[in-house]
Amino acid sequence: MGIEVSGRIKDLRELMKKASIGVMVVSKTANVSYVTGFRGEDSWALVTDKKVFLLTDSRYTEQAEGECAGCEIIDRKGPMAKSIAEVLGGRKVKRRIAIEDELSIAAQRALHKELGVRLQACGGVIESLRQMKSKDEIILIAKAGKIATAALDEALEVVRVGMSEGELAGMINLNIRKRGLRESFETIVAFGANASRPHHLPGMKKLKKNDTILVDWGVRYENYCCDLTRCFGVGKVKAEYARIYNAVLQAQRAAILKVRAGVAISEIDEAARGVLRVYGRPIYGHGTGHGLGLEVHEGPVVSGKNKGKLRAGEVITIEPGVYIPGEWGVRIEDDVLVTNDGYEVLSPAAGELVKLIID
Amino acid sequence: MGIEVSGRIKDLRELMKKASIGVMVVSKTANVSYVTGFRGEDSWALVTDKKVFLLTDSRYTEQAEGECAGCEIIDRKGPMAKSIAEVLGGRKVKRRIAIEDELSIAAQRALHKELGVRLQACGGVIESLRQMKSKDEIILIAKAGKIATAALDEALEVVRVGMSEGELAGMINLNIRKRGLRESFETIVAFGANASRPHHLPGMKKLKKNDTILVDWGVRYENYCCDLTRCFGVGKVKAEYARIYNAVLQAQRAAILKVRAGVAISEIDEAARGVLRVYGRPIYGHGTGHGLGLEVHEGPVVSGKNKGKLRAGEVITIEPGVYIPGEWGVRIEDDVLVTNDGYEVLSPAAGELVKLIID
Repeated sequence: MGIEVSGRIKDLRELMKKASIGVMVVSKTANVSYVTGFRGEDSWALVTDKKVFLLTDSRYTEQAEGECAGCEIIDRKGPMAKSIAEVLGGRKVKRRIAIEDELSIAAQRALHKELGVRLQACGGVIESLRQMKSKDEIILIAKAGKIATAALDEALEVVRVGMSEGELAGMINLNIRKRGLRESFETIVAFGANASRPHHLPGMKKLKKNDTILVDWGVRYENYCCDLTRCFGVGKVKAEYARIYNAVLQAQRAAILKVRAGVAISEIDEAARGVLRVYGRPIYGHGTGHGLGLEVHEGPVVSGKNKGKLRAGEVITIEPGVYIPGEWGVRIEDDVLVTNDGYEVLSPAAGELVKLIID
Repeated sequence: MGIEVSGRIKDLRELMKKASIGVMVVSKTANVSYVTGFRGEDSWALVTDKKVFLLTDSRYTEQAEGECAGCEIIDRKGPMAKSIAEVLGGRKVKRRIAIEDELSIAAQRALHKELGVRLQACGGVIESLRQMKSKDEIILIAKAGKIATAALDEALEVVRVGMSEGELAGMINLNIRKRGLRESFETIVAFGANASRPHHLPGMKKLKKNDTILVDWGVRYENYCCDLTRCFGVGKVKAEYARIYNAVLQAQRAAILKVRAGVAISEIDEAARGVLRVYGRPIYGHGTGHGLGLEVHEGPVVSGKNKGKLRAGEVITIEPGVYIPGEWGVRIEDDVLVTNDGYEVLSPAAGELVKLIID
C-alpha cells in the first residue's frame, strides 16, 4: 500500500549534502508525507544521512506501519521537541540541523531549547523535489480526477430547482465519501452572479429555473489532490452566458495547447489572456494555474510574473475565467501533466457548455 | 451582523500596556476573528493604542465591511509584511511590536525585514481573553449545538444497514450544509469496533444488522464551534454494550455535576474516571475535555494535569469514553458552560442509550 520513497530520499540527501546539512527536521504535513509515505497528521520526520524517522503517537502507529515501509517509526509520548532530541541522542548533536521555515517561532524555540544548537531555517527544499511528479504520483492525481468527476456527475443527476448552493456542495461531498474519499479542499458551488467571486463559499442561495452553476472541487486520493472547475447552464441558457463560456473554453484550450517542457510559463499565462482579449472579455485577476500534488496548491505558479520554464513531470492546473460582478462568472479548470512532447490532460477534460434539463 | 468587539479590544490594550507593547500583530485566524469580528481567512489584524486594522485583500473586503464595524479595513495588494509596514508608517516605528509565536519563521523574517525593528514573540495573549466567553458567544455555541443535533437527527432517519461510515458522515455534513453552515471539524463516524479508536476517520466499513455507531461531530455557527459525541445501538443491542454505555453516561454526568466556578479542573477529570473505576472499566487515554469557542480546541484543558480552577464564562466539553480494542468504543460528549452557581449544558444533553430500529 505504501508509496515508494527511496528515490525521493536519495534526491533529498543530495540537496542536504550540497547545503552541508546533516539532519533535516521535516514538520510540514505534506513534506512529512513526501519523505515517509505517511498520510496521517500531527507527525514529523527526521532525515539523516543514514535513516528516516517518523515521529508520531499512539493514534497513528498502526497506520504508519502500513504506510511507511522504509522508516523507523517512533511512538512519541511527550512533546515533539523532546522526542527529536532523544532520537538524535540528546544535546551532543554535532551535525548541522535544518528546520523548515514554515515552522512556528514557538516550535523553533522548543527545538532550540532541547537541542542546544543553532538551527538553520530553510524554505522550499522538499517542495522543489515535490514539484516533479513520478509516474505513481501522476496515476494518483489522475485517479482523483476521475473519482471527482464521477461524484459531480452523480450530484448533477439529482440537482433540482430550489436546491441551495450548500446542499449541492453537500451532495457532491457525500458522493465523494460514498467512494471512501474526502475533498481536497472546501467544495465551491456558486449559482448565477455569485460565480463572479472566485472564492465564493456555498450558501443558502437557491437554484432558479434558468440559472447557471459553477462548481470548483477536488478529491484527495491516497493523499494526492485534483482540482477542477466546471460550469453549467440550467434550462434556457442566455446567449450571453454561452458566449462567455465559449471564450473561456477557447482561452483554456489555447493555454493547454502551449504546454510543453521548456516553454516559458509566462507564455502559458499569456495564451489564455490573449484569447480573452480577442473576445473582448475582462481579464481575470488570479493566476492562470498552479502546481498540485500532495497539496492542492504547489509550485509552479502559472502566471505572467513567473520567469521560469515548464519541466516534464510537473502537473499544473489551467483555469482561466471571466468574471462580471453582479452578472456572470465562468471558470474552467483542468489538471495537466507537462511532458517532453507536450501535455496530457489528467482530468476528464472540460468540453462544450452542458445545459442541464431539470425540474 | 457583526459581533461587538470593543470590550475585547479594551481588555487586550490593558494586557498590552502591562507588557509595554505598543503594537500587536495578530496573525492567527481565530485571534484575528476575535479582535475584529472578521470570519474570513488569509487576513491579519494590527492593534495599536488608538486603532484596530484588518489587513485583507479584494476577495474579502466586501465581507469585512459587513463584519468589522470598528476596524479600519486595509485592502492590501502586496505581501502582508509590506502592507503592515505601510500601515505603521514604514521603518520609523518606535513602539514595541509584538507578534504571535505561532507565526512561522519565514513570516517573522519578512516582517523583520520590512519593519527593521526587533519583534517580541508572545504566546497565548489573546487566547487568554478568548477563554472567558461573553453572553453573545455562549448563545452562538448553544445555537451551533442545536443545529448540529438537528443535522444528526435528520441523518438518523435515513441511516440503513449497508450504509458506509463515510456515507453517514456525508449525510450529516449534507444536513449541516442544507442549514447554510459548515462542520467545525471533520465528522467522525465509527461503526462497531472502529469506535475504539478515538480519532478514527470514516471509511468504507458498512453498517451491520446489530451494530453500534459512534458520531463525533460539530457545527460552526457565525464562527463559533460546538463539539459533540453520541453513540447508538442498532437492532438488537448486546447487553455488554448497553452496560458500557451506561457506565460512560454515569461518568459524564458525574463530571458535569462537579462543574462550578472555583472548582479544581483536576477534580472534574477525576469525577469521570472515578465512576469508570467503580464500574471496572478501562480508563480512557485522552483528556476529559477542553475549552471551545472560535476554535474547536481552546483552553482550558480538562485533565488531571491541569492545576487550575474553572472560571465562570468558560465553555468546556465533557467527554469521557471506554475503549476496548477490537470490541467496543463509547464516548459521550456535551458542551458545558461554567457558572458561579454550577453549570449549564449548552448542547441538547445526551441521555439513555438510543436503539435505532432500521432496515
